[in-house]
Amino acid sequence: VIVGLDPRVDRLPEELRPATPSVKGTAHAVMAFNRAVVDAVADLVVGVKVQVAFYEQLGCAGMNAYASTIRYAREKGMIVIGDAKRNDIASTAAAYAAAHLGTPDGADEVDDFLVDAVTVNPYLGSDGVRPFVEAAAANGRGLFVLVKTSNPSSCEVQDLDCDGATVYERVAELVAEWGSEHRGHSGYSLVGAVCGATFPEELGRLRELMPCAPLLVPGFGAQGADVDDIIGAFDTEGLGAVVNASRGVIYAWERPPYAEEYGPQRWREAVWAAAADMRERIWRATRPDDAV
Amino acid sequence: VIVGLDPRVDRLPEELRPATPSVKGTAHAVMAFNRAVVDAVADLVVGVKVQVAFYEQLGCAGMNAYASTIRYAREKGMIVIGDAKRNDIASTAAAYAAAHLGTPDGADEVDDFLVDAVTVNPYLGSDGVRPFVEAAAANGRGLFVLVKTSNPSSCEVQDLDCDGATVYERVAELVAEWGSEHRGHSGYSLVGAVCGATFPEELGRLRELMPCAPLLVPGFGAQGADVDDIIGAFDTEGLGAVVNASRGVIYAWERPPYAEEYGPQRWREAVWAAAADMRERIWRATRPDDAV
Repeated sequence: VIVGLDPRVDRLPEELRPATPSVKGTAHAVMAFNRAVVDAVADLVVGVKVQVAFYEQLGCAGMNAYASTIRYAREKGMIVIGDAKRNDIASTAAAYAAAHLGTPDGADEVDDFLVDAVTVNPYLGSDGVRPFVEAAAANGRGLFVLVKTSNPSSCEVQDLDCDGATVYERVAELVAEWGSEHRGHSGYSLVGAVCGATFPEELGRLRELMPCAPLLVPGFGAQGADVDDIIGAFDTEGLGAVVNASRGVIYAWERPPYAEEYGPQRWREAVWAAAADMRERIWRATRPDDAV
Repeated sequence: VIVGLDPRVDRLPEELRPATPSVKGTAHAVMAFNRAVVDAVADLVVGVKVQVAFYEQLGCAGMNAYASTIRYAREKGMIVIGDAKRNDIASTAAAYAAAHLGTPDGADEVDDFLVDAVTVNPYLGSDGVRPFVEAAAANGRGLFVLVKTSNPSSCEVQDLDCDGATVYERVAELVAEWGSEHRGHSGYSLVGAVCGATFPEELGRLRELMPCAPLLVPGFGAQGADVDDIIGAFDTEGLGAVVNASRGVIYAWERPPYAEEYGPQRWREAVWAAAADMRERIWRATRPDDAV
């Protein structure tokens, strides 16, 4: 289980909002919020997924907050996934790979945006993705390639039928190929895949097509997916997937049952409780015979 | 004609490199280089395409240089295209759209990364692209959707055959649809498309499929495409496309014939000459009956 740090400025807790609106004040509020969320969930979940868009929206001050957020979560021992969905052609993809996963020679002078894994868009094919694979392999990091995303209109391109297979199934085959030379002792590769929790049937099929790819499964909670929908992402031992919830956890104090129990004042406890509930439900579903 | 500001740190002119390597020194060198390139080409070409990857690679200092580069080029009256290839699902795509094109209500507190047009990856479908269209329409800006990219392995996903049409042709149909309600007095839409100069036959076909989309055509020069390859991107009046060259212009002093004529000392003049030559050659090819 991972928690998504998607700080929407208009939904920050009242007490953290700057008295007089300013970009720097907002960026500070975002950092204060992220620190509180990390503190609340660090002992419960393995990592955080940081959505770059919400930081980029705040310009340079936001990118500073992004760098600080990564640093803080790593200091707390968490795995950090940079949800950046970067993509470009060969030599330019290498620049993005260096930014997020480090350089192939491992001599990084710049570490602001370095994360344990980054999300990558596959529309440009192998020469756009391999630089990320090489950077990940050189630095003990990883990537998650977008295969089947959780949004309703993902079907428009990803579900196009190509001689009996969909585009996303073709991409899944590429993901399996890109990762085949980079498997760890668990059998899993450093090349993972993003497969939305909102498409449960496709999830099982994708688990089969990419037996060695760790799956990053967004869409749990606020986007409508529940525990039954994500079971297909796991292998028979209950391994092989990380499930992300963002809004459902970090704004838990706004929704039942947490709104009633904690309310806006005790928002930190609501975040903790929502993360704990999510973890327990997924644990029970994937390890039916074990105690929690 | 536009010039790509893709500052590769190891190829900056000798005189601009920092005496002692540091991230801030490198970012300053990048800015000095960009200012010199903009000064050299501002009277020759309509705009610049700024490749975000090369700035992101330098972390927060690099993103400051990106913001400064945009500001400088706009002050010089140039159109600025942010080559960011951003993409995400609906509400998150809206955050990226706000970062690069402004908010739908036009009340932008943060303008660091605002550009005249941004490049967008279509793999997530309509709900990932429409927030960019809305932001562009609200603020008099535009976007270029990746359709057929210039790199060799673009075929792996983009050329998959879907019932008699390729994936990129299906995406082209979506681009035409997304732009249909947003056409200006020229007949062209604010939703353009990226179509690589390295695939000349496809370029003509894409011009037909998207008659109202301005085409952004990268790959001229260093990536191997020449004037004959890009003709198909233009309409019968010689309008409808912007052709980008990056390495071929901004590092012109490293290659013939500019290396011989100008050499590394007079690199500014080499940049100017390469941009002027490119402009003249494309002008002649697209307006065969006119004088330059």
